[in-house]
Amino acid sequence: MAEFDLINRYFKVGQTPQSVKLDKGDDCALVVPNFELTNASLAITTDTLNSGTHFLPDIHPHALAYRCLATNLSDLAAMGAKPKWFSLALSLPKALSDNQTWLAQFSEGLFELANEHHIHLIGGDTTSGPLSITINAMGEVDHQKAHKRSGAKAQDKIFVSGTLGDAAGALEILLKKTKAKTQNIQEALLARFNYPTARVELGTRLLGLASSAIDISDGLLADLQHILKASGVGACIDIAKLPCSEALLAQFSAAKAQQLAATGGDDYELCFTVPADNVNELNQLSQQLDLPLTCVGEISSDKSFVVNHNNKPTQLSQTGYQHFV
Amino acid sequence: MAEFDLINRYFKVGQTPQSVKLDKGDDCALVVPNFELTNASLAITTDTLNSGTHFLPDIHPHALAYRCLATNLSDLAAMGAKPKWFSLALSLPKALSDNQTWLAQFSEGLFELANEHHIHLIGGDTTSGPLSITINAMGEVDHQKAHKRSGAKAQDKIFVSGTLGDAAGALEILLKKTKAKTQNIQEALLARFNYPTARVELGTRLLGLASSAIDISDGLLADLQHILKASGVGACIDIAKLPCSEALLAQFSAAKAQQLAATGGDDYELCFTVPADNVNELNQLSQQLDLPLTCVGEISSDKSFVVNHNNKPTQLSQTGYQHFV
Repeated sequence: MAEFDLINRYFKVGQTPQSVKLDKGDDCALVVPNFELTNASLAITTDTLNSGTHFLPDIHPHALAYRCLATNLSDLAAMGAKPKWFSLALSLPKALSDNQTWLAQFSEGLFELANEHHIHLIGGDTTSGPLSITINAMGEVDHQKAHKRSGAKAQDKIFVSGTLGDAAGALEILLKKTKAKTQNIQEALLARFNYPTARVELGTRLLGLASSAIDISDGLLADLQHILKASGVGACIDIAKLPCSEALLAQFSAAKAQQLAATGGDDYELCFTVPADNVNELNQLSQQLDLPLTCVGEISSDKSFVVNHNNKPTQLSQTGYQHFV
Repeated sequence: MAEFDLINRYFKVGQTPQSVKLDKGDDCALVVPNFELTNASLAITTDTLNSGTHFLPDIHPHALAYRCLATNLSDLAAMGAKPKWFSLALSLPKALSDNQTWLAQFSEGLFELANEHHIHLIGGDTTSGPLSITINAMGEVDHQKAHKRSGAKAQDKIFVSGTLGDAAGALEILLKKTKAKTQNIQEALLARFNYPTARVELGTRLLGLASSAIDISDGLLADLQHILKASGVGACIDIAKLPCSEALLAQFSAAKAQQLAATGGDDYELCFTVPADNVNELNQLSQQLDLPLTCVGEISSDKSFVVNHNNKPTQLSQTGYQHFV
């Protein structure tokens, strides 16, 4: 299928918003930011998903597209930015660029999430090659209020959103390291892996409340350490406090579930720090959003990173993963 | 080599410009556009180069990085935008992510061109996978004056910058379809393929002069047809007028050189249309920039596309290439 036909059929979806002065199909897209925002700035992020590294080759195209956009939205959420526009660079082997069903499902997954967050596809590149998806997402945020990793202060409380470890639990099922005890457990965990929820509304509502934030893509322990390093502080957390889903606790022992919650990647929940004075307001926000926000520890002024279990020291065998290992 | 070490060593290069409020290393970069520009808008483009599709696997990493950024700068140039920021998504097989020489040369090629155009690397993603480079480049332009493909009008003159066909000639040498007659010819043609010149200054100087523009990546005949289609017009060009370099004419017959100039991709010269009233000013610009700007034809009101050779009709076997063919 020719590149231009493919783009016209599957990626020219939706109305052009007013902020877009020139949409897909020219050498560049032209967009006009909202200049009236206080301390207006653009938040820009890029994430790539490669077959075999970030997803299994047989992943459903609907989930693949959804997940790739979600990982980028999650970065905007961590910053507190409002999603606006994105570009898609899609490398496809010939078997897929000729597969109308695959393309239609990929397109559906992409625009299902894009429409939910009113983020508009402004362009990209479609090329021939091994399956790989790179999305560049842009949002708007007050650059004074945006949650930088460097903002954590001693005595700030450390919070996480939602539940942790579900995606890592799903991966154990997908890699056949374990067999799901029930169909319900399998569906619940796989849904969290394939369709992660980018915490976009939480991110924007945390502006002015949180002192720093990061999205959990490599595991809580690994990602929290990015905040600690950038902020020049330490932390003490208690893994017995980590919020785990019913499905995770039904599938695994409590100890295993906690380990997955502490070190498993791909959850795309937010980890953020909050001055003690803001904790009441945060609890109200949790109720308003109907989303658990759980305090799992506290920032310390020294640079040590203490991981306790019910207030007793523990040693975890793995502090997260990184690519190229 | 771990992802963070790799980024710190090879991609944290250069001073952070004032427009960048948060540089590489957080969930997003934060940038502030120049709001004082008349009709301020951001021009955004994305180009991917995949091994085996867009370059030969043994390409020198310095040239690979340079070329990938140049193809994106060329899109900004076509629009008339001033380059500002870019993101780099780099997928590397393990053999390359562990190869310090390769990485250092890639980094040098990238920043040689980035520094020349004062475009700042704000972030990206480094992943494990088959060699693939996606760059997302952003620039600033008055969205009323930007050169859209849809702006060509009947009687506008059709111009091209520089010389055409050199990259296609180089590819014939690289693919061993021909053997360079001299070392000088080989070096001249390969330099044009490996180190294309993005016509950034020409692009910005054409604002207010040109009615439409496109960069020549798929071949003049193919790319000009994008302008014709978007503008709802036709054209008559004469391939005997196409500007060819001394090296191309020394290597190939005149007929072959003209065919390469008409249909060869990867030159990254600009093709643009100019109202007849602006041709004098354009010729002055050509002298100021010391860059040939050659009239190769004229836009017509009907939708026919006539390709002549010395005013006589000709048939070219190939009107450009597209991926997935």
